[in-house]
Amino acid sequence: MHVRVISNVNEASSVTFIHRTAVVIDVLRASTTMVAALAMGAESITPVETVLDAKAMRKPGELLGGERFGRSIPGFDLGNSPEEYDRKTVQGKRILFTTTNGTRAVHKALRADFVLVGAFVNAAACAASAVSLKRDAVLLCAGSHDEFALEDGLCAGLLLHRLQEMTGKLETDDFGAAMLGLYESKRERILEMLRQCAGGRKLIKLGHERDVTFCSFSDTIPCVPRLSGDRLVADRQN
Amino acid sequence: MHVRVISNVNEASSVTFIHRTAVVIDVLRASTTMVAALAMGAESITPVETVLDAKAMRKPGELLGGERFGRSIPGFDLGNSPEEYDRKTVQGKRILFTTTNGTRAVHKALRADFVLVGAFVNAAACAASAVSLKRDAVLLCAGSHDEFALEDGLCAGLLLHRLQEMTGKLETDDFGAAMLGLYESKRERILEMLRQCAGGRKLIKLGHERDVTFCSFSDTIPCVPRLSGDRLVADRQN
Repeated sequence: MHVRVISNVNEASSVTFIHRTAVVIDVLRASTTMVAALAMGAESITPVETVLDAKAMRKPGELLGGERFGRSIPGFDLGNSPEEYDRKTVQGKRILFTTTNGTRAVHKALRADFVLVGAFVNAAACAASAVSLKRDAVLLCAGSHDEFALEDGLCAGLLLHRLQEMTGKLETDDFGAAMLGLYESKRERILEMLRQCAGGRKLIKLGHERDVTFCSFSDTIPCVPRLSGDRLVADRQN
Repeated sequence: MHVRVISNVNEASSVTFIHRTAVVIDVLRASTTMVAALAMGAESITPVETVLDAKAMRKPGELLGGERFGRSIPGFDLGNSPEEYDRKTVQGKRILFTTTNGTRAVHKALRADFVLVGAFVNAAACAASAVSLKRDAVLLCAGSHDEFALEDGLCAGLLLHRLQEMTGKLETDDFGAAMLGLYESKRERILEMLRQCAGGRKLIKLGHERDVTFCSFSDTIPCVPRLSGDRLVADRQN
């Protein structure tokens, strides 16, 4: 299995994804929130690029969720904190979801054969899904403001680590080798790294310290969002 | 001191360098060769973007050096192996130099207040020069084929490590934090990493194994190329 790692959305070219499984990673917080929402019973999540699109597309009974630059969006039902998406609120619901970087990353990966969403919380399940799909993979770190975000790179490293454990042999590119090396050296200090990186510091300043902690846990949620048409649904093989 | 790290030339925007010191890093092999040539007494190195420009600009007594895709250029006096640039060949000479990525990276950084060239071989000297210039810094990893190259990232990590030792306090961005963490976890295995990365494997295949070893040594050459007009000269403060 060959796994390429892309450092941020701006670096991603859509042809890169052809014939491959894409794993979209936006740890703080879009990936983690999408995993949590599907695990809590949401029927589907439709990643939408703009706030206007989300409002225009909404049908009765559907929920609007997401954020812009870490803040909630006026008129939306839900923000981008994973714990807002509890069972009572989301069970059986369709959610239209838009965030600054994460939903853009999903759209960038649309030419892949399969699109999964990965985070620390679902890393083992996500790696297992990727292996079962029998394609080479591209891990797309969403990043922030078109730049690399440390938390996404660390998560790519964790996914590589899990894929290596599962497949025995893994080929990756130079950036993947760097992220794997980084993860292996920091694996005991993930929460600390997430609190120190630019995205984590910003969230803590905005009062979302609890979210940073939630997003730092590895393998706590065995649910993998997988794109089906234009909706993410829970991959049922896990 | 704030130090930003850019993962490859393609990611670099020229405005990023304004009011800053740029350090251009192309470990395999342009940076290392430029350091070696100036240390061996070359008067100056003019980074030139194209082979045609180099041939057109050449004046009597000047040498042409460089490579394209790891191979020597027909009609040129010298390739891109640091050991070709020995004292007998280069002492007192002006060199016009063009390589696939390294010289392009120097041109990208021209709006910086100062442009230095960094490699493993001159890391301590380069960090000392950067500190003495009293600006924030941008470490530009040249990369390869518009992508991140592991050897350049590791070298950026070493430079951050040295800058941290020298200044006591260092601020960097998420990518810098990743490269610093990576370097610190791999510092005892630099040669092994350089042999395994894409650029190193390619050079070994082309018969340049000795160059990969040469380029892997840290702090062996206390010479820092610094741009003066359109020429790199040895920074005399070291």
